[in-house]
Amino acid sequence: MKLYDSFRAPNPRRVRWVMAEKGVTDIEIVDVDLFKGEHKTPEYLAKAGAANVPALELDDGTTITESLAICRYLESVYPEPNLFGRDAKETAVIEMWTRRAEMMVGNPLMLAVRHSHPALAVLETQVPEVAQDNRATAERALRLFEDQLGRHPFVAGDRITMADIVAIVGIEFARMVKFRLPEDMPNLARWREAMLARDAAKAGV
Amino acid sequence: MKLYDSFRAPNPRRVRWVMAEKGVTDIEIVDVDLFKGEHKTPEYLAKAGAANVPALELDDGTTITESLAICRYLESVYPEPNLFGRDAKETAVIEMWTRRAEMMVGNPLMLAVRHSHPALAVLETQVPEVAQDNRATAERALRLFEDQLGRHPFVAGDRITMADIVAIVGIEFARMVKFRLPEDMPNLARWREAMLARDAAKAGV
Repeated sequence: MKLYDSFRAPNPRRVRWVMAEKGVTDIEIVDVDLFKGEHKTPEYLAKAGAANVPALELDDGTTITESLAICRYLESVYPEPNLFGRDAKETAVIEMWTRRAEMMVGNPLMLAVRHSHPALAVLETQVPEVAQDNRATAERALRLFEDQLGRHPFVAGDRITMADIVAIVGIEFARMVKFRLPEDMPNLARWREAMLARDAAKAGV
Repeated sequence: MKLYDSFRAPNPRRVRWVMAEKGVTDIEIVDVDLFKGEHKTPEYLAKAGAANVPALELDDGTTITESLAICRYLESVYPEPNLFGRDAKETAVIEMWTRRAEMMVGNPLMLAVRHSHPALAVLETQVPEVAQDNRATAERALRLFEDQLGRHPFVAGDRITMADIVAIVGIEFARMVKFRLPEDMPNLARWREAMLARDAAKAGV
């Protein structure tokens, strides 16, 4: 398999983090330079189907985009440690928290960065109100995670799951626009420190 | 099980559509009136954990929010017809298309409605630029679906899957703000007609 990756982008980092947690080392990494538009060449589009990274090319040539689809596929090939749940109920709880992390925190923070960081103006039109609204959405949602992390060591419960990876990657990416966790959220601070202390935090960073 | 539902909101409609495709009739439906703030009462928040509908309460009291987590859980209880994939590769392709439908079309259209329809101003602050940017995002992405639907009858291939349900619910919801499919997209038009002719299109509408 081959992973089409882009070093600084947040969605590929989710995949690299999952690979590191699972100790996956047999997937070839192909760097795609977004600033050179390598994700928009006819060759890349023919393969990936959309101008997105990451993309995972399977051995039969099928190519999957969308970080979460890729990560769940990787779990089927490299099942341990489990990050998506061991039975239907646990899978549902983990998917709920993964989506909360993504829809309420990770994606809004990514959009806040894309629509406000000067270096990204070349990639797409930036709308200040979109940056602002997304940042406010994420800030509001953090309270939910602070409360949850007061009850459990990790976002979806007692062990690290996909939900933690999505949340930390979004939060760390937003440091590009000087986003910091609010000081009155000690549980999030403790969790962030634990996440960044993991070997996987260094994967390709 | 009990489904906390809200008649006009798009995310609960995804769940009702899945239930209708699968012929599920043994889940109690509880209507939550968003305009009366019933999703923000202490009782609801204690149960659902967040001010969101839909929420599925399992028989052991565990409550799952997030429409896609709920739908995948329902698939584990009511496996036929299959909507999420039968093996790891098919599951990855379907999840990729489901997420494209959600991230590029469904969610942007929902945000466009929320930030521009006068009746929804009571639910949250509306930012015209956010409505505009999201509508433009969805319009750009439709070309990808038009091309895909020129190759396959349904979004993820030869049969209806979760990807179709997410796409059609988003597109139909956006009629509230007079969104229409572009006239130069005959494949999308043919697909939309086929989707709306299904019995499940009428589920709770």
